Amino acid sequence: MWRPFFQPYHLIIVQDGDPTKTIRVPEGFDYELYNRNDVNRILGPKASCISFKDSACRCFGFLVSKKKYIFTIDDDCFVAKDPSGKEINALAQHIQNLLTPSTPFFFNTLYDPFREGADFVRGYPFSLREGAPTAISHGLWLNIPDYDAPTQLVKPLERNTRYVDAVMTIPKGTLFPMCGMNLGFDRELIGPAMYFGLMGDGQPIGRYDDMWAGWCAKVICDHMSLGVKTGLPYIWHSKASNPFVNLKKEYKGIYWQEEIIPFFQSVAFPKECITVQQCYIELSNQVKEKLGHVDPYFQKLADSMVTWIEAWEELNPPTKAAPAAQSNGVKKDAPAPKPK
Amino acid sequence: MWRPFFQPYHLIIVQDGDPTKTIRVPEGFDYELYNRNDVNRILGPKASCISFKDSACRCFGFLVSKKKYIFTIDDDCFVAKDPSGKEINALAQHIQNLLTPSTPFFFNTLYDPFREGADFVRGYPFSLREGAPTAISHGLWLNIPDYDAPTQLVKPLERNTRYVDAVMTIPKGTLFPMCGMNLGFDRELIGPAMYFGLMGDGQPIGRYDDMWAGWCAKVICDHMSLGVKTGLPYIWHSKASNPFVNLKKEYKGIYWQEEIIPFFQSVAFPKECITVQQCYIELSNQVKEKLGHVDPYFQKLADSMVTWIEAWEELNPPTKAAPAAQSNGVKKDAPAPKPK
Repeated sequence: MWRPFFQPYHLIIVQDGDPTKTIRVPEGFDYELYNRNDVNRILGPKASCISFKDSACRCFGFLVSKKKYIFTIDDDCFVAKDPSGKEINALAQHIQNLLTPSTPFFFNTLYDPFREGADFVRGYPFSLREGAPTAISHGLWLNIPDYDAPTQLVKPLERNTRYVDAVMTIPKGTLFPMCGMNLGFDRELIGPAMYFGLMGDGQPIGRYDDMWAGWCAKVICDHMSLGVKTGLPYIWHSKASNPFVNLKKEYKGIYWQEEIIPFFQSVAFPKECITVQQCYIELSNQVKEKLGHVDPYFQKLADSMVTWIEAWEELNPPTKAAPAAQSNGVKKDAPAPKPK
Repeated sequence: MWRPFFQPYHLIIVQDGDPTKTIRVPEGFDYELYNRNDVNRILGPKASCISFKDSACRCFGFLVSKKKYIFTIDDDCFVAKDPSGKEINALAQHIQNLLTPSTPFFFNTLYDPFREGADFVRGYPFSLREGAPTAISHGLWLNIPDYDAPTQLVKPLERNTRYVDAVMTIPKGTLFPMCGMNLGFDRELIGPAMYFGLMGDGQPIGRYDDMWAGWCAKVICDHMSLGVKTGLPYIWHSKASNPFVNLKKEYKGIYWQEEIIPFFQSVAFPKECITVQQCYIELSNQVKEKLGHVDPYFQKLADSMVTWIEAWEELNPPTKAAPAAQSNGVKKDAPAPKPK
């Protein structure tokens, strides 16, 4: 199903679990495949920051990619159809979302003003209409909604059938639950913040990998005046994961989250932090200091955040063409607003 | 067209302009009609706070109403149809929006979690799922979009044909352009903040009446933990007003707004302000102090804001059944979250 949409692009496949098993990739794709042995070989001792037997391992792909735009998707997601029955090209919509500015500083009631047939409404300040460069495009899911285990247990039959024809910016200062199932981002603008944490094998929680990345990335986007969009495109999420297994993975996260969210709501960066890497290191310090008391896990996570940035800098040394400050999203690197 | 939808409700008609002209109201409606002579008679010297020859005069109706839920609509707005061709009952949707909580403290990616077929997604903190009482329901417009004069001039043929099937909360801390064309609110929760300012006859600006009310109401809602929703219902906006006339009304607002928005973004209320009236008086002081330098108009507007509250208190004295603190939106007066 995905062939016509994925074939034009370069694929990175991060093989989870047993590295002796062989993944068969269909003919005709341009791809790199990494298993756990490759991760260990490439990162050496820094491989400890990449989760094992958990979907969080996907962030290794973000690390080794050389592309500007990244799209990440789960293996149980298929091509969705719009209300007219047409197959949705999710990648094309993510790229469009990322190429047009976001509007994080003021809410536009007709949603994305850069879409065809829409604009800024009366009362939208003219000085804010340039918007901000878009760093993240968060897509949604038809059929099985992305619910937590308690909601899955309570509403096993609920399906998402509502196609909402909108793309919108998540306002500055507002946190959101970023799902990694159908997610695009600009690696040059926000890549170093897209770390999916320590989850799964040997860790006390799972299913918070994308959430963690989302909260970290959002506070950094807010600090750096970068935008985050959500809405279109939809993918078709085919099967609900087991709610009992999910509950086991999630339960610590569910109560830790009650301290994590106030923490992220209060995060502030000194103005000396002008790259994503600098913000991320600062954030790791604050995690250690302010969440360390919740559980020793957060001490370990904070250390891993530092290891991740070290790995990022090792694999992505600044080049002449893209000096550190520019490749990390200062304004002069922003895409120009789309002429309308 | 509106008869089946409006007939069950009580109408208040505020007649703009020449009071000697007679408005003919069709048979079968339960209504009160007020012209300028009535406004002057009822408010005496306080009538100066009600604009003349401008749509801002509608807020007189908010003042004299005795109802909990208010719906206000422009005279060039008609019944819209949803994509299935069914006529939209705008009032029913506004009431549903107002009866279910808002979610201003965290963004839900599947939009209003209280709609049928939707819920809070994975990663939404459980402690925030009760939400906040909804004070304002901002509806949208098919056909002629609510553009300012410059955008009208640049895009005379643009029509809004996109039906976005969503209701969402405008997050805490985010301002939005509130249009008075299709607007519902809970008069007990936020009524005293719904003052449409000094516009039109004898004033230097127009077409910022609803915007002003929206910015005032939003910062007060944020302080009082009340919610503001936007999205459904749609009405059909039939005709674009004259962009040249609009430009004349708007042009001062367009540049004043560049100072007004940073002002509202920085407004903070002392915690002693526990009623909408107290917040509004405090806001009038801040307007005088911080916007007075922009133009003497803001001194006059600040005084009118005080007059409006005096008029509100005169016409709406606290009753035993609804003591001041309760009728102004403290939490115990909130509608219970809809059981799902």
